[in-house]
Order: sequence, then structure tokens, then C-alpha cells
Amino acid sequence: MSTAQKPFKVIGTRVAKLDAVEKVTGAVQYLPDLEVPGMVWGKILRTTVPHARIRRIDARKAEALPGVLGVVTGANVEQHPFGYAKDHLALKRDVVRCIRDEVAAVAAETEEIAAEACRLIEVEYEEWPAVFDPAAALSPDAPQIHPQFPGNLVNFSYRFTAGDVDRAFREADAIVEGTYTLNYVTTACLGTMAAIASWDPRGNLTMWSTTQIPFLYQRDLAEALGISGDRIRVLQPAVGGNFGRGLDLYPIDIIAALLARHVQRPVKIVFDREEEFLASPTREPCVFTLRTAVRADGTLLARDARVIIDNGAYVSWGSTTPYVMMTTLAGFYRCPNVRFDTAIVYTNNVYSGSMRGYGNLESTFAIEAQMDDLAETLGLDRLGIRRRNANQPGDVTPQGLRITTCALTECFDAVERDIQQPIARALRPGWRRGIGYAGMFHVGGGARVYRSDGCGAIVKLDDFGRVSLLTGASEIGQGSETVLAMIVAEELGIPFGRVEVINSDTAVKPWDVGVHASRTTFIAGNAALLAARDVRRQLLGLAAAELEEPAEALDCEDGFVFVRQAPQRRVPYEKVVRAGHFREDGRILIGQAFYDPPTQMLDKDFRGTVSATYAFAAQAALVEVEEATGKIEVLRVASAHDVGRALNPIGCEGQIEGGIHMGLGYCLTEELRLEDGRVLNPGFLDYKLLTAPDMPEMLITLIETVDEAGPFGAKGVGEAGTIPISAAVANAVKDAVGVRVTELPMTPERVYRAIRAARARPGRDLTTAERVSVPHQRGG
Amino acid sequence: MSTAQKPFKVIGTRVAKLDAVEKVTGAVQYLPDLEVPGMVWGKILRTTVPHARIRRIDARKAEALPGVLGVVTGANVEQHPFGYAKDHLALKRDVVRCIRDEVAAVAAETEEIAAEACRLIEVEYEEWPAVFDPAAALSPDAPQIHPQFPGNLVNFSYRFTAGDVDRAFREADAIVEGTYTLNYVTTACLGTMAAIASWDPRGNLTMWSTTQIPFLYQRDLAEALGISGDRIRVLQPAVGGNFGRGLDLYPIDIIAALLARHVQRPVKIVFDREEEFLASPTREPCVFTLRTAVRADGTLLARDARVIIDNGAYVSWGSTTPYVMMTTLAGFYRCPNVRFDTAIVYTNNVYSGSMRGYGNLESTFAIEAQMDDLAETLGLDRLGIRRRNANQPGDVTPQGLRITTCALTECFDAVERDIQQPIARALRPGWRRGIGYAGMFHVGGGARVYRSDGCGAIVKLDDFGRVSLLTGASEIGQGSETVLAMIVAEELGIPFGRVEVINSDTAVKPWDVGVHASRTTFIAGNAALLAARDVRRQLLGLAAAELEEPAEALDCEDGFVFVRQAPQRRVPYEKVVRAGHFREDGRILIGQAFYDPPTQMLDKDFRGTVSATYAFAAQAALVEVEEATGKIEVLRVASAHDVGRALNPIGCEGQIEGGIHMGLGYCLTEELRLEDGRVLNPGFLDYKLLTAPDMPEMLITLIETVDEAGPFGAKGVGEAGTIPISAAVANAVKDAVGVRVTELPMTPERVYRAIRAARARPGRDLTTAERVSVPHQRGG
Repeated sequence: MSTAQKPFKVIGTRVAKLDAVEKVTGAVQYLPDLEVPGMVWGKILRTTVPHARIRRIDARKAEALPGVLGVVTGANVEQHPFGYAKDHLALKRDVVRCIRDEVAAVAAETEEIAAEACRLIEVEYEEWPAVFDPAAALSPDAPQIHPQFPGNLVNFSYRFTAGDVDRAFREADAIVEGTYTLNYVTTACLGTMAAIASWDPRGNLTMWSTTQIPFLYQRDLAEALGISGDRIRVLQPAVGGNFGRGLDLYPIDIIAALLARHVQRPVKIVFDREEEFLASPTREPCVFTLRTAVRADGTLLARDARVIIDNGAYVSWGSTTPYVMMTTLAGFYRCPNVRFDTAIVYTNNVYSGSMRGYGNLESTFAIEAQMDDLAETLGLDRLGIRRRNANQPGDVTPQGLRITTCALTECFDAVERDIQQPIARALRPGWRRGIGYAGMFHVGGGARVYRSDGCGAIVKLDDFGRVSLLTGASEIGQGSETVLAMIVAEELGIPFGRVEVINSDTAVKPWDVGVHASRTTFIAGNAALLAARDVRRQLLGLAAAELEEPAEALDCEDGFVFVRQAPQRRVPYEKVVRAGHFREDGRILIGQAFYDPPTQMLDKDFRGTVSATYAFAAQAALVEVEEATGKIEVLRVASAHDVGRALNPIGCEGQIEGGIHMGLGYCLTEELRLEDGRVLNPGFLDYKLLTAPDMPEMLITLIETVDEAGPFGAKGVGEAGTIPISAAVANAVKDAVGVRVTELPMTPERVYRAIRAARARPGRDLTTAERVSVPHQRGG
Repeated sequence: MSTAQKPFKVIGTRVAKLDAVEKVTGAVQYLPDLEVPGMVWGKILRTTVPHARIRRIDARKAEALPGVLGVVTGANVEQHPFGYAKDHLALKRDVVRCIRDEVAAVAAETEEIAAEACRLIEVEYEEWPAVFDPAAALSPDAPQIHPQFPGNLVNFSYRFTAGDVDRAFREADAIVEGTYTLNYVTTACLGTMAAIASWDPRGNLTMWSTTQIPFLYQRDLAEALGISGDRIRVLQPAVGGNFGRGLDLYPIDIIAALLARHVQRPVKIVFDREEEFLASPTREPCVFTLRTAVRADGTLLARDARVIIDNGAYVSWGSTTPYVMMTTLAGFYRCPNVRFDTAIVYTNNVYSGSMRGYGNLESTFAIEAQMDDLAETLGLDRLGIRRRNANQPGDVTPQGLRITTCALTECFDAVERDIQQPIARALRPGWRRGIGYAGMFHVGGGARVYRSDGCGAIVKLDDFGRVSLLTGASEIGQGSETVLAMIVAEELGIPFGRVEVINSDTAVKPWDVGVHASRTTFIAGNAALLAARDVRRQLLGLAAAELEEPAEALDCEDGFVFVRQAPQRRVPYEKVVRAGHFREDGRILIGQAFYDPPTQMLDKDFRGTVSATYAFAAQAALVEVEEATGKIEVLRVASAHDVGRALNPIGCEGQIEGGIHMGLGYCLTEELRLEDGRVLNPGFLDYKLLTAPDMPEMLITLIETVDEAGPFGAKGVGEAGTIPISAAVANAVKDAVGVRVTELPMTPERVYRAIRAARARPGRDLTTAERVSVPHQRGG
């Protein structure tokens, strides 16, 4: 899809996001700002206990409250199971299974009345024993959460084997083993989840949603409501963050629609901050046990991993993250023998969804910890062992992923250079300094997790030389509008400012899978490029008549079509377009394309190259650790990314910086704390998001491998910045104070305890979570 | 464009307008209902004198009023002349020329503050002599309104000659002559004119407008503001009527944009009712002098007409209505010799624009009065003389208009039948009853008044079998969305309810000329049909793989593609579409078309066939007239229309009924009364719109000639109902009480005076405005 061509005019320039000024000046209307005529407010009542039978719901007092229009419960609406495992009803009918569970909802004239009415609803529960630990949930006498899923095991798993793992472990020169505990975090979007539902008199539903998968949402919501998908139109106003939160259908949308149908008025539901922490999807907590086998020279021989995922009470995308964990385990660094297995376990905890990086943070944390530990064990250089095993162009991973462009080694070179630049600040007494490295491997050319990984695009060039791109892609703050407009402007040879991007209405935009897997620039970018190319071809064809030259003799640039051999003979686009319809057999200039990458879904054995290209990155962290307190300060992060081509460098940097911010929070401070299934810290006072002053210096390098498959050579970069940073920091902490911390977030307490434990075991710096063994002498 | 095919499933059924329920339940958001973030209110200050030099504008007190954000005048903004004759600035700089003239505008936090601030602006005028009568304005010593247009004559005229008119008059058996005075009326839309202007930080302007020509508006507004058209995006929320009001750019839109730019906030301006009467475009007043020559058998020989149009102070579309007057004069009924001339005269009156029927009401009023008078003079039957001269299929008019389908004679047959049905009500003492007839000839297949008469369409068939039509056409209440959706549903073989029409955003929809000349069903309908056909073709192509049959063996209906020889082998559309992108080299189903009819612009001699087909109609009115008071009551109207094909009969009937309402108001009660350039009756108390109880019984006949060029055979019908009714009523009044009333509206006073005058002249029933002569004995 890359094109050899003239020097770029738009691509590669640093372009501020199209909506930047509107966002910083507060002019943008987010979903909660919208008013629909006749609209009323909805509010959801949730369970007060994590596992119980609902004995009785009495809403009479609520219904009698002035200003209340109606109350819905599982008893008075038609609804259908939804979600990946169809284990879920939006309004719980008989049983509640986690503290997030919805038992009723109220529509009222104001939000306050709706909230008051929720307080007036009496619900009587028969409390049941609950289980909050996945290991406990697997025991035979554990409370059963879904009768149809006995043993609390979700009805799918991810099991993959390549090579002869046992033999490789037998023949290894060294083995490290560790168990890594990754916790709940949440997207903590500044804009909370919200929905407006409005039924028209013909029974059609318009949803204003924070979804990031409008077309799949249209299908899933229809199914949950028992109507056909053609009756739903989805509008996507600006969202204040998403990060994967909008990748599934959740009860808020279904309930808004049910309420609106019940009270015959449009209904708006907006989560308050507490609700957002309690009831929006989280990153899945897991326990990741990994063993790695190596030869003495550092060559990876085998990996063997087992992951236990706390699925929570219902299945959403968090349960499917092993899909990506596995890919990293089997594909990041060359490793011929691989075994991967999972247990995805129902508990009475809140359930997780998709979140930026999607399984890869967890896998990478384990793998990169062991790369350092292996280097230490074997007495090798930490970067040396990585370079030795680094993926290379042309590699095919054990799962069959075909790596085309790959600058992983160059990424390590770059971060090694950058992280070691002099630093002005002197080391404080009691603090120790360390550097850590970690790399990353991720999809960069879409990810075929559905039968289609495609996106449609329509490009319209109008009478005024103005271009509209109608793209299937969704803008969720990632800057996709901007980069897609750049692609169209470059291909069509017009100023960037002349491109409008239309992307927020399913009735208007063509089909797309949605925002996930860092796919938008690559997939939607290719679609936009092809559609623009289609318009360009038509434009030259039309101009041929105007300029009395064959189309092949023409070119276009800066809004003019010109004769290649006599560039002064030129005509502006708008004139060509007008001539197109100001004549007999007139026409308009509209191009279209659908781009679906030449990739494969994983087969039943989890084999197939799911992405048209893969992204690589390396990060280095320079940290200081206070030994007496365990406090970590990250001074600098170097982050180098094989982005294929940096279409909008400032956009790439923004994504990477945001990713580092999110990854550092995961690593250092963020933790959604649950106790007996209840969220203890549903607010920004207790859930510690990093703020701007908390952020380290960030040195970003964009490496351009110009991928053949990418639009102008680009690969996806949306998630990359988030993925390796925890591992890099953990490795830096080990470099500084000699301890391996295996649990996130690395709070001062955890680091302090690790230091204390290590000091108590003279000569051993590793925590008990990790064991290093040299199982046998290599035979001669 | 018509298609021979299976029995229709959607076409021809009676479908309620898509927005009907939303409109009657008040759910629709009209432009005045919209709120844009940060929006403030604008208000316009107009002159207090109709012709003056502006000596001084002092806005200091207004600017000091709390809540005022800024004041614009001709002195502090950049603006450019606009309008057909470029004789106009939105904010008048030195001179005001009519009472509608804008001298300043205020932006303020509330509408009330803006209005108060307008009152605080001091304007000092040097009053100039003014002229309010076109005849007086033509005299050499009349005040000169625009120095660049000396003699107060607009710099264009409409002069047409065919045949030898003078000779025909010399050789005629009878001649009638009359002068008809047509007055100001206004569209009286229930939704007043409104605009919201919002500039983004990049200097792009979004306009929410009541325009009905979004793309021409985009061009004209850009020119008035001195920016390029690509910077403007036009959004068209629901309008509460338009009827031609939105066919030009008017100061309200420019001023909204200037104010918004001045105060750096979005600005909304909404006309109050008084302003709407004062400052929205009117139907042009004119004096129409017509002579008609006939043979003794009633065969028309010649017409000779001269029209003086009161242009008002500036040129808008009202000044160009002779374009249509001429067509009727030269083309309605067969008439070989024609002379037509105009004087379009500047006065200090308010200026007129386009209004439904656009010149044809005036022409038809004169022509059809004389058809009756000729019949009387020659002792012929009133319908007989019409049938004798009626246009027939295959005719070419003196201007070169090619008549294809034509059921004018059948229309007269139908209304003759219907109007004479028994009527229950007995005639009251002192009242007399009469029947009058009039026919109509209008464009019915577009009207090429620009170089293009085209419209674009995009049709998208999605994963859910849902169809979106992105049409260039605008919905102004005429029901175009509904009929376009029907066309797409029929052609694609899907239920009507599955089609969504997207038509209100220039960034999304393809180019179109706009709503005028009853063109939307025909032009936009053909575009929609072609785009749907394009999708249909692609759908069958895609389904061929699914069904393992060649596409030629397939057909589609009711949302299924099936094998023609084995209809049980079928697959639903949504499955075909999904298969389209759930496979390698996937695709989406998007069709597009641009339809521009095979017509000609009038050449410099006003010759050319401007429409792809022409519409014909006849109306009959049954009236009662009280002789003692001159009061007219219309009991019944029969209205028969050659609509080509009635795509949505209830829609056709609605348009015709609405047209009769508007035409009857013009005929009987509506009159925007001006005195010394001032509007005396700017409100519904004094401007008498007919209400529902005032309306007569209406018997409507739709005659289907199935025009080859029309979508499924349809022609335009939007204006037809309005056009002949005044003439039919005037003829009925003459039939009842024997007097010819030549001035509209036919108030009781005018009718009473005409009756009195006729009674005073024994043996003569005609008013002095008309003379009948028999100029010579036919030579042997």
C-alpha cells in the first residue's frame, strides 16, 4: 500500500489534532453535554451485595415520586442475554453476581430525581456465599456462579504448543521461573460512560454512545433488545477517552434503550465518577506463571506459561486477552518451543474488558523480567541477550505470524543511546539509580479477530475543492481523524485544511470493525488512501478533457491538475469538479474503497498471521529508588518505535507519551482495590492516576521501516507506548536496588518489602517468587 | 428512467411522511431550537426610513450594555456585494434603500439584551425622496435608487418574440385585452428565517441555515464574506416551511457570520414574526398586460404581453420570475405567435424573492382570464376553447420546449366531472353560484437555470440490510425524503422502513442545485434510482458467489436475493453484504450516481427545452358570491394533475392541497400591504392566511402518463396546485356574478366594486380593465 512518490507535502509534518483547539477551549460537545428534545434522565440501581438471589423488588415508592416517569427491572422488560459468553442480562432477573450488577433503573425528569428514586426502590436479597479468588473458585466446593458453567470455568481457553518444550527444558543451560501478579486497573477516562437512547414512532432506535465499535455494537445491542440491527442507528459524539472501554456492549446502553422504550421518551444515562470506577470495564487481573529455558550463550530455547485470569462475574473482552498474551509469549524474541495455557475463572468480582495493550502488558512484564534475570544468571549483557534473540525481518513465529519489517534491534540501540545521556540531577543520599530495558512486539497492521478486519471509506471532492472523507473509523481521542485527513490530503494533493472527516454516524459511514489493536491508522488509513486514489484517478480523467491531454500526461498537486510536461498548463480541482457536472452526462467526484488486510484468523490451533505487519518498540527507564522507603521515581523514559512511517510525528509522539503515562500508572500507582468484591477506591482521591508533574522526561525516537503494506508505509502505534514500560521500570528497579518485584503496582510498600526480604537472604537478590535453576550439565 | 417491471411494492402506496409523527408530536428540532456550545444571540437593527443617507451610527451605548458582546455595522466589517445583480451589502454602508435594510447588528448573551442594545444604537439619517411605484420610478425625474443602474431599470430584461404577432392580431377574429394587477404576498412560513454561524479556530465557518440551496448558498456566502467556498459547511436542520424563501442568500446569514466572526462566538439570529413579514422575501408584485388574438373557432393566434415588475430596492429571484411567465405565455395552450416584454424596476419597496409557482401564478391568472373572456366573446364553451388549444404530446412550444407526456385534456375532463358532482348545500338568498376552470403548464422534469440541473446520490447497503441514501436534495417539508426513500426501497426490493435519508450536511451529501422548480422528485429521484440500481447490480454480483449462480440468473425482492428459476434458493441481503466483507478482497456495498437531465439552458433568445418533461394540471372552482357584499366562498376545488406516476399518492395530494391553500390565500385574502415602502400588516392578525376551516372541499385526481424520463415515470408536482387556482376562482366569480376581477386578492370590497361598476354599465359585464374588440372583418 506504500507508494513511491514525490517528496511528501503533508505526510511527515507535525500536524495538531483537528479537534485540538476545540478540546482545549472547551468548545467540544461530549455526549453528556448533549440534549435531545424531550429527553429525560436515567439512573441505574445496583446491587448492594456481590452474590445473592433477588427475592423482591418493590419500586412503588420510586414510581410515586413526582418527576419519575418509570422504573424498569428484569421483571418488566424484554431483554436477551448478551456478551461473548451470553452469560449476562442487562437488568438482572433472579441473581446478582458482582457488585456492579444492575437490578433496576429509573427514568425521571432530572438526574437528581432519578437518583432519589433509586434510593426509594426496595430490594430484598437472599445473600449467597461468594468467591473472590480465582484459585478458590476452582476448588470443587466453591460457590457456583453460573450453573451452566460448572466449576466456574469459562467455556473457552487458550492452549498452544509449538516444538518440544519439555525436551528443550531438559536440554537448557539455564532456566528461570517466576510468577507475576497483575492487578485490576481501569481506564479512568476523564469522560465517563454515557448513553442516550431515543426511539422513533416507527420503532427505530437512535443511540448516542461512547462505543468504539459502532457496527458490532449495533448488532449486539439489537440482539440484546430483541430487534433487528437495521432498526438501530449509532451516533458517536466526542468521547473523553476510551482506551478499549468502548469495545464491548455494556448494560448502560441496553438499559438506556429499555428505559426509553418503557417511558416513551429519550433517556440519557451518564455515569458519575464513582459509577465509572465501579461499573466500567477494567484491565483483567491475572497471575502469570512463566518458565524460560536458555542456552548458555543466551539463546532462547523454550517458554512455558500458564495464566490464571480472574474473569469476574461475566465474560467480556478481558477474558480473551490470552489471545494476545499468547502471541507475545510465542512470538516476542525468537523462541522455537512454546507452551501456553490458561484458566479463565468466574468469580464474584467485577468483570474486565478490553484496555489499551490488551494482554500484552502482562505477558511482556513476565517475559522481559525473565530476559533480565536470564542475563544475570548467565552473566550476559542485558541488551546483548535481547539483541541475540531479537526478531528479524522475514521471521515467522511459532504461531505462523509473518514478520515483514522489524526494527526491534534498532529500537534497542536508540533507547540505549538516549537513556544514557547525561542527567543533571545529582543522586540524593539514600537513593539508588538504575536503568532498565524492555522491548515490545504487537500487531501493527490490524488484527483479524473477526472474519473481517476491514474498513470502508468514501471520499468526496466537491465544487469548492473541499474533500470529505466518510470513514468507518471512530475517533476516540487517538487522533485518527487528523492522520486520515493527512493521508487523503497527501494522496489528493490538497492542503490539509481542506479535508473534513465524517466518522460518527452509522447511517452515514461505511462499515468498520472498530477501534482496537492499534489498527485505525493502518486499516482505515489504507481504506482512505485507496478511496482518495480512486478520486484522484477520476479527477485526472475529468481534467483530461479540460486540459486536452490524456489523463496519463497529467499529475496533480496543491489543488491543481497540471500537464506533467508543461506544469504552467493547470486547472484548479474545483474547476474540474464543476466542469464535471456543469455539462452533459455530468458527474460528481466520489471515490470509495474497502480495505481488508491479507491476513488470517487464528485457526483452532491458534495459528495464522493475524496482522499485515507487526510493530516493535523498546523502552528504557532511568529510575531512582529510595532504599529506606521503597519509593520509585522515574526520571527518564526513552521510547523507540518502529512505526513504519511517522505520518504525523506529533501524533505518534502523543500516542506514545499517553501510552507511557498509562503504562507508568499501571506500573507504579494505579490499582482498583477490591475487597470481598467491593471496590474500595472508586474516586480519583484514592485511585492514583499520575498527573503531569509526576511524568518523567520522555525521549522518543520514531524509526521508519516504511512497511510495504502500510499507508505510505505506516504501522499502528496506538498501544505500543503502554506495553513495555512496566517491565522496563521493574528491570530498572532491579538494576538500582537488586530486587525483582513481581507484582504491580510497584508501590513503595511492595518495593520496600522486596528490599527487606532480599537483604534478609544474603547473596540472593531475587524474591521468592522467582527461582533460577541450572538443571543439568550440558552433555558432551 | 422509467422501468418496466414487476408490480410495485412501495411505489404507489400511500406512505406517511417520514417525519410526520415527529412533527405533529413536536419532537422535531427546528433551527431555532438548536443550541451550539458558547452560542450567543444576534439581533438586526433596520432602518426607520425607506430611502436615506446614513449620516452617523453611534453604537457606544449599545456596546456598554451589560451582556453585549459586540456591534457590527457596515463600517467595522469586511463584506462584499452579493445577490444576482451584486447591488447589495448585508450591512448597509452609506445608503438605505428600503425599510428592510440592515444598518447594524448586535451580539449579546440573550435575545432580549440584543434587542435592547439595538434600541440603544443611534442612527442619524439624511432622508431622501423615495419612489414606491414602478411606473413613477421610470419617469426621468424619479429618485435614483442605484447610481450604477440609471433610470431605475434592472440591468436585464426578458424579451421574446415568435412568429408574426402584429400580423396575427391584424388577422384575428377577436382580441381580448386586459391588465392584471398582482400584489405582494409572502410565504408566511410558520418557522421564521433563522441562522446560526460558528467559526472554528482554523477559520472555517459552519452555518445552520434555513436555505434550500445549500451548495449555491455555500458559494454565495463565501463570496459575500470574502473567503473561499471550501471553508463553509452548511447544515440544514428541519425548517417550518420555505416555499422558495430559501432560494437565495439574504442578509440574515451573512450578518450571523459577520457577527460571529466579530465576537468570536457562535451567533444565532432568529426572525421574530414581525421581522419575518418585513424582511423575508415576498412574491413579486407586477402589472401584467396581455392581449390575445383568436380565430372565430377559438383557435389561439397570438399573445402579446408586457409585465412591469416592482423589483423593490435590490435584485433577488423575484426579479427573474419573467423567465417562467414567458414560458407560460409562449407555451401554455398552443399559440404560434408570441411577444413578451418586461420592465423590472427598482423602487424603494421591499424586494421579492422566489415563491412557490414562481411567476407562473401571475401569467396563468392573465391567460386563463382571457380564455374565459374569449369564449364569452366568441360564444364558445369555456372548456371547448381550452380543449381546442390544449397542448398535446409531441408539441414543441415557440421557445422550443419539447412536450413529451401531456394529459392536459384529461385533466380538464376530470375536473369537469368532479366539480359538477351534486352539492348538498342550498344556495342562500342573495348569493350566486358559479364554476370556473383554469389549466396549468409547468416544468416537471427539472429546470435548467444553471449550467447544471443535476443532483448526486450515494446509496449504502449495510450489514443489517439497512440502506442509507445520501442525497444532494434538501427536505423543506415537501416530503422529498419520503419519496426518495420509496424509490430506493422499490428499486432495491426492501421494506420502506429500512431506508434512512441523509440530506442535511454539505460535508456529507453530494452536490445538488437545490429545491426549486418542483424538481426534487424528478431529479433527485432519478439520482437515487440510479444509485440504488448501482447497488442492486453489485448486490446480485456478490450474491452470485453465495448462490453459485450467475448474477443474470438472480433477482431480488423483499430483502432477499433469489434464483429466478428456483426462488426458494435465496439469501437475505444482510448476509450477502456480510459475505462481501467477511472474506478476502472484501468490499462494501455503496452505489453512487449523478443525474443531470438531458435539457438545455435558454439561449440568449430564450429558446431551449429547459425541462426533461413538463407538468400539466387543471383546476375547477365552485364558488358562491354574495352580491350585496362581494364576499366569495369557495365551496369546492377539483384539481387534476398529470403527475407522470404518483409515487406516493398521499404525498402528491398533500402537495396539491397545500398548493391550493397557498393559491387560494393569494387569490382571496393574502396581501402584504405597503404604504410609502412600509409594511402595514406584519402579523397574522392583519395578514390573513386561510385556516383549515376556511378551506373548501378538495377533489384531487392524479393522472399517470408514466413519463419515460421520470423515476418510475414520475414528474414534479410541488408547485402545480398553487398555480391555476386564482384564475379558476376569478373565472368562477365571473360565472357567478358576471364580473371580471383583475386584481388580487379578490377582497369583498374589490368584488363588490366590480359588481357595482358592471351594474352601472348595462349590457357590459367586464370591468374597464378589459376591452374586447373585433378589429376587422376577416378578408375573403
